[in-house]
Amino acid sequence: MSNEFDFRIKKIGDCKIPSPMPFSNIQGDRIANFVRDDQYVLHSVIKGDNQDKKNVYEYALEMAGPREKVFFNPGHIHAGIVTCGGLCPGLNGVIRAIVRTLWQRYNVRRISGVQYGYVGFMPESNLPVKTLDPDIVDDIHNMGGSILGSARGGSDVIKIVDALEQLNMNMLFTIGGDGTQRCALEVTEEIERRNLKITVVGVPKTIDNDISFIDKSFGFDTAVSKAEAAVHAAHVEAKSAIDGMGLVKVMGREAGFIAAHTTLATSDVNFCLIPEVPFRLDGERGLLKQLERRLDRRKHAVILVAEGAGQELLKETGEKDPSGNKKLADIGLFLKDSIISHFKSIGREANLKYIDPSYMIRASKANPNDSLYCARLGANAVHAAMTGRTAMLISEWNNCFVHVPIQMAVSKKNRVDPESPLWRDVLEATQQPITMMDTADKKNK
Amino acid sequence: MSNEFDFRIKKIGDCKIPSPMPFSNIQGDRIANFVRDDQYVLHSVIKGDNQDKKNVYEYALEMAGPREKVFFNPGHIHAGIVTCGGLCPGLNGVIRAIVRTLWQRYNVRRISGVQYGYVGFMPESNLPVKTLDPDIVDDIHNMGGSILGSARGGSDVIKIVDALEQLNMNMLFTIGGDGTQRCALEVTEEIERRNLKITVVGVPKTIDNDISFIDKSFGFDTAVSKAEAAVHAAHVEAKSAIDGMGLVKVMGREAGFIAAHTTLATSDVNFCLIPEVPFRLDGERGLLKQLERRLDRRKHAVILVAEGAGQELLKETGEKDPSGNKKLADIGLFLKDSIISHFKSIGREANLKYIDPSYMIRASKANPNDSLYCARLGANAVHAAMTGRTAMLISEWNNCFVHVPIQMAVSKKNRVDPESPLWRDVLEATQQPITMMDTADKKNK
Amino acid sequence: MSNEFDFRIKKIGDCKIPSPMPFSNIQGDRIANFVRDDQYVLHSVIKGDNQDKKNVYEYALEMAGPREKVFFNPGHIHAGIVTCGGLCPGLNGVIRAIVRTLWQRYNVRRISGVQYGYVGFMPESNLPVKTLDPDIVDDIHNMGGSILGSARGGSDVIKIVDALEQLNMNMLFTIGGDGTQRCALEVTEEIERRNLKITVVGVPKTIDNDISFIDKSFGFDTAVSKAEAAVHAAHVEAKSAIDGMGLVKVMGREAGFIAAHTTLATSDVNFCLIPEVPFRLDGERGLLKQLERRLDRRKHAVILVAEGAGQELLKETGEKDPSGNKKLADIGLFLKDSIISHFKSIGREANLKYIDPSYMIRASKANPNDSLYCARLGANAVHAAMTGRTAMLISEWNNCFVHVPIQMAVSKKNRVDPESPLWRDVLEATQQPITMMDTADKKNK
Amino acid sequence: MSNEFDFRIKKIGDCKIPSPMPFSNIQGDRIANFVRDDQYVLHSVIKGDNQDKKNVYEYALEMAGPREKVFFNPGHIHAGIVTCGGLCPGLNGVIRAIVRTLWQRYNVRRISGVQYGYVGFMPESNLPVKTLDPDIVDDIHNMGGSILGSARGGSDVIKIVDALEQLNMNMLFTIGGDGTQRCALEVTEEIERRNLKITVVGVPKTIDNDISFIDKSFGFDTAVSKAEAAVHAAHVEAKSAIDGMGLVKVMGREAGFIAAHTTLATSDVNFCLIPEVPFRLDGERGLLKQLERRLDRRKHAVILVAEGAGQELLKETGEKDPSGNKKLADIGLFLKDSIISHFKSIGREANLKYIDPSYMIRASKANPNDSLYCARLGANAVHAAMTGRTAMLISEWNNCFVHVPIQMAVSKKNRVDPESPLWRDVLEATQQPITMMDTADKKNK
Repeated sequence: MSNEFDFRIKKIGDCKIPSPMPFSNIQGDRIANFVRDDQYVLHSVIKGDNQDKKNVYEYALEMAGPREKVFFNPGHIHAGIVTCGGLCPGLNGVIRAIVRTLWQRYNVRRISGVQYGYVGFMPESNLPVKTLDPDIVDDIHNMGGSILGSARGGSDVIKIVDALEQLNMNMLFTIGGDGTQRCALEVTEEIERRNLKITVVGVPKTIDNDISFIDKSFGFDTAVSKAEAAVHAAHVEAKSAIDGMGLVKVMGREAGFIAAHTTLATSDVNFCLIPEVPFRLDGERGLLKQLERRLDRRKHAVILVAEGAGQELLKETGEKDPSGNKKLADIGLFLKDSIISHFKSIGREANLKYIDPSYMIRASKANPNDSLYCARLGANAVHAAMTGRTAMLISEWNNCFVHVPIQMAVSKKNRVDPESPLWRDVLEATQQPITMMDTADKKNK
Repeated sequence: MSNEFDFRIKKIGDCKIPSPMPFSNIQGDRIANFVRDDQYVLHSVIKGDNQDKKNVYEYALEMAGPREKVFFNPGHIHAGIVTCGGLCPGLNGVIRAIVRTLWQRYNVRRISGVQYGYVGFMPESNLPVKTLDPDIVDDIHNMGGSILGSARGGSDVIKIVDALEQLNMNMLFTIGGDGTQRCALEVTEEIERRNLKITVVGVPKTIDNDISFIDKSFGFDTAVSKAEAAVHAAHVEAKSAIDGMGLVKVMGREAGFIAAHTTLATSDVNFCLIPEVPFRLDGERGLLKQLERRLDRRKHAVILVAEGAGQELLKETGEKDPSGNKKLADIGLFLKDSIISHFKSIGREANLKYIDPSYMIRASKANPNDSLYCARLGANAVHAAMTGRTAMLISEWNNCFVHVPIQMAVSKKNRVDPESPLWRDVLEATQQPITMMDTADKKNK
Repeated sequence: MSNEFDFRIKKIGDCKIPSPMPFSNIQGDRIANFVRDDQYVLHSVIKGDNQDKKNVYEYALEMAGPREKVFFNPGHIHAGIVTCGGLCPGLNGVIRAIVRTLWQRYNVRRISGVQYGYVGFMPESNLPVKTLDPDIVDDIHNMGGSILGSARGGSDVIKIVDALEQLNMNMLFTIGGDGTQRCALEVTEEIERRNLKITVVGVPKTIDNDISFIDKSFGFDTAVSKAEAAVHAAHVEAKSAIDGMGLVKVMGREAGFIAAHTTLATSDVNFCLIPEVPFRLDGERGLLKQLERRLDRRKHAVILVAEGAGQELLKETGEKDPSGNKKLADIGLFLKDSIISHFKSIGREANLKYIDPSYMIRASKANPNDSLYCARLGANAVHAAMTGRTAMLISEWNNCFVHVPIQMAVSKKNRVDPESPLWRDVLEATQQPITMMDTADKKNK
Repeated sequence: MSNEFDFRIKKIGDCKIPSPMPFSNIQGDRIANFVRDDQYVLHSVIKGDNQDKKNVYEYALEMAGPREKVFFNPGHIHAGIVTCGGLCPGLNGVIRAIVRTLWQRYNVRRISGVQYGYVGFMPESNLPVKTLDPDIVDDIHNMGGSILGSARGGSDVIKIVDALEQLNMNMLFTIGGDGTQRCALEVTEEIERRNLKITVVGVPKTIDNDISFIDKSFGFDTAVSKAEAAVHAAHVEAKSAIDGMGLVKVMGREAGFIAAHTTLATSDVNFCLIPEVPFRLDGERGLLKQLERRLDRRKHAVILVAEGAGQELLKETGEKDPSGNKKLADIGLFLKDSIISHFKSIGREANLKYIDPSYMIRASKANPNDSLYCARLGANAVHAAMTGRTAMLISEWNNCFVHVPIQMAVSKKNRVDPESPLWRDVLEATQQPITMMDTADKKNK
């Protein structure tokens, strides 16, 4: 932890209008309180790690929640909501919470949904905005997907701000991942350049949980629940066959959180492979030899692989032909083929079943835990926007809702630390070797 | 309906021992009754179809259930259970019901599970039988898979009967599909040849529902429930994207029942493709053109394909290279690639998500409806075996449990009749064209 | 079976208009067929029961489905839908199927939902009808309840027909139970009296499955699934306590089908109590003594009781005071109190947990099996109405969709026959005594 | 926050034996690490609250996890596990994790389950201990309840320590609530008095989440999921009826966390009633008047009440008769009766459906999120016990696993703070008035 981070939140103006909400600012009167601007949440809670103690205590994130004074006059607001990128359980829950909080708490009556991500802002897309109100969003949290549609692309900052101006939209909620929020940040810069009073508040969305400064991203818990079902099926298949193996691929391009959590949730995984911990197929410590030993010992095995795991492996094994970059990178199919041909080569009948539940996970509705979380993220995003805060994300950090500058959130990625308790517990649960590399391999890393 | 079927059930001897069960044989005393040997269930219930009316009323299947007299002395029984082929929800439920009925109703104390299908009978497999009792099977119906393991192969009739003799097994329950039951039939012939008193009763297992003389095979209902979830996900993905398409492949090598029922259960499928109804990709009536029109009209589309659909198509389009027989036959991946390249070729961005939930379906536990069904199938199998009936299957026909000679059940396959109410209702639900072939194509069929 | 039933279906006129559907009437051309008016489904499928054979073959129900000619001109139709009585899973699925089939198959454009059952027809209720179209009903099958609301009462035949006339409604779908359909029958009589061309087609709704001439009522399968979860919980509670008992009450005022099926689906029930089979609490064969024995033997017990079971018992034990008629009839609470005080009286600590899942069952969404069923019931109801058939119900009988005259359906109730295979299998599954009455008790019955 | 708490953990001896686990104690080598004794987790993470800043930073909880050195020689260990009190989802998961970690990580071979809580220690109970190993616990996390049984009572400290001595048990894991852990604390004191080397480590169990110093107790997340289903059913029933109301009672004797979280997870609750926030039935601000207004406005209402809410109310309304202390305290039935009679008294037909899902919640299996949590709690409990730590609980605090002295954990109860963001978000979600008391009422509180 160093002084690289600037935790201060930008505002487009001062708050002079009293909030319509009936909360108190007296502690001890047993009435729910407004949040004060001097309430912060510590960045780090662990003493004794090799950290600069001074910083640990200094750095802190602004607490989220309704303030006593707001910036906007509700009658002047036209709020927009946009969902970008791949699907994630809970998108509709966030949309619903934003609409309901704007309408019911702050009496905002003009709320529009931008269709299919930033694409909906592009004039050439010819997509009208969707009018939103509490009736329209009443039941949407019980459905997967996004009622606004979600897409990649369209991140043309100039055109987006043009569209905001044309629509008279002065409040924008951007629900999306890293790229989406980077673009949102640039949008705020263009807004500033044009001297407009438009606030942009993001809700970080990443089913992989790879965004920093957030305890757990929304949808992650649901994703683990659904991945658990896939691993359970793989386990049943593996146990019902002679030398049965189940192989499951889950989301996780650069971060293995879904794989790690699913492993701990099921206790049925024997090999958990994630992008952060390289492994070899061959050699005494390699996966294939370990698999043989596991089958000798227990007759069946379950392998859970994050989609971003073993990327070096794909190259190493000569799969470099230019035609299919996508296919090359599919670690699931690669492992499936490698394992089957390995066992064939040693004359042992392998019985491998491969499961890729990705889209069934992405499209599922949020579980109650995520529903609750989305409801609170959305409400707090509105509270922040109402005070004119901008260029920030809503996040839960150390179990508190906080404001995080986009600049800071996108400055580093969240990864599974191989020295963390999480990965240690995974190693204990799977009983897989700490490394599946030979000493020689590791030196080359 | 002609005289091709012989509905009579073979027996290995006469029933002289009174059943230990406390049922009545008086109708009207409000006490549950034994089944009498003159109770039959009509084969056909429909009048007015082009059938020989005389036969319709003549042909009938023997009703299943406990009889007043049994053939076996419980103390002399050693019963075996074997599960063969791919997994299917409910296997453990059938095993459990057989064990419980033998033990608790007929006081049988020697019950063995043969491991990994007929392979477990082969001396070279070196697999011991598993002792079974009510405690061991107490909770197994809440788990997917088969506690005995299940495998293909091992159908060496001589070795199986040798093993039966060595194990002193005089009652065998074979839970498996077409091939399994054909082998069971040959086993009964070898038993007869050797003049042994061994009864063999089968429980038909086919997740595809492609066995004849059975209303619905066990696990089918669960399979449809699970397939419904996959289609739901595909629908959510399709609706959330611009020109979004969801493609789901389900089981059904030769019979499209899962696809047809899932279509009716969800109402979200726009194209249901099954083996019984050929289709073309190209041409005005072909799938690709229909897809374009659907997207023009409704912006999204869901396609559900049974794994055995469109097999001619795979050959027609030149996919004949010798290397990958398996890949060639994969209609799911073939359709995925064909649709993507078609839309690319016409310059329209296709957004297709492909879901293959097969193993998650096969490995799931039985839903309550199937649990009930498995419990009754297993119990009735025991009742039949106790009377010395052999070479027969237990089945539900016209909502009654009946005995079906294996010979008859394997003599024809169950298929979706394109002229049946089922397929008609699918056409109505999808609003897909009655044929996706041009007139010329059909002539060549 | 005697000549008491008249299976003929009434019509309000002849069919002269060609159906807009593209089906064939040639068998063998591999194109889905229209249903012909000479297609019937046999009433009884069992030979060998003590039945007049002549009748068995004579009686048959008209097959449902689209006909080649229809009575109504789609442009002249104003269709109404009404849902009456308590909630049942699948109501929305039936509504949806009716709307979609009318709109998409027959091009009907005026469809109205009557709110809160027949109450919505009453002028004093002041409830407007709801306009229905495919967009409005698109997702409703994924929700429990009824989007039209459902209520008892309002069965004033004159006022209903007055309302039909005022609304120019000439096609009415009545989704409801026994009472609802009796009223619908009287409505058709009043319609005839007034010489109107209005057709009334019912979809039988009874979560208890107590309507005759229907294999299984819609929602029943879902109800059993949900009841299974309650029994599972009761079993877990019972097994985790010393002398633990779980008591679950399920729907079933006069028919114990839910209790019987749930018992077979779970195999965890030790005592299944239904209205059709009386039992005693006291005495050697009575429930309390049986419970003691079960606890001696196995340490825990699960009791499943249908709400209509043991009604005589409530009277017998002196619970006749006038104040609480409702409480008097609650067999669940009565059994709970009786068991607890019995065990207290014999100085044995009883650990009983009572679960009443009724409303959670009634409000749940239909499972896929019921969804499919509702979709087909609704579509077939429309096909029937389009031909001018009236005073009839849509039903599935011997696995075929058929037309049943309301007159016939309401002439007798469906009950669990204590001599049927169903109850026999329940006795086997629970191992409860065939009767829980002493000989003396039974004589008095 | 003051100096009332002593965060130091007791030990029964020094750690001299190297851990068998292959972890590293070097940070930066990308190998998972042992936990060091100087790693702590801050107690409070919020700056700006009225807290003594010095204390905020000083107080901290010892971090849990495997240490480099342990106290016990695995070959000398006889570990015992006991589950006490009511059922809670996840009990089997904790048992399983303890057994697996002891056996597989530390090579402990003598592990016993004590049956039915502390009762199993009592000589008069005559209950043998159950031998536990990884095979026995393999699948138990997929089942609700506790395989050891769970009961209240038996907290006779002398007899418990006598039993520990007789069994040569030197490691005890106590899974239970407040009372259980208080007794465990006394057991450690008696152990110390007798100068024995027995360690006692607790895993806090409270479905209500009312134990302090724990982010969320295990099973809580599952409880909210299940409660959500009950509220959903109540909402469906309420919306389908004229002036429909749904009333759901959930667990929460002294803390309303389940009610508050369920409210946020569903967004369907209109009145959330918890023990921490008193309310009135009568008067302008009282519940009954508020209900009328809600029905006027929206036609339906959902009320969620924690079992401990409104206790004063029960007394106030004169329900003091001596016969049924239990019934008096049932706020669910009391509210049901009060609401029905109120609406009757004002001549308005109330349509209220009451749901009490308690036992279905308690008996359910842990959801994946709780499964993961239980696995980690159990593993960390073993790590702590192996180092000779005693009189402590395992807990998750600020997302880290920590050690909490029992003394401290039982010194105060966890409650919903009416001034916290949680309750504020509930008020926003329900839109219920901040107080349902008249000014006069509040003064008397």
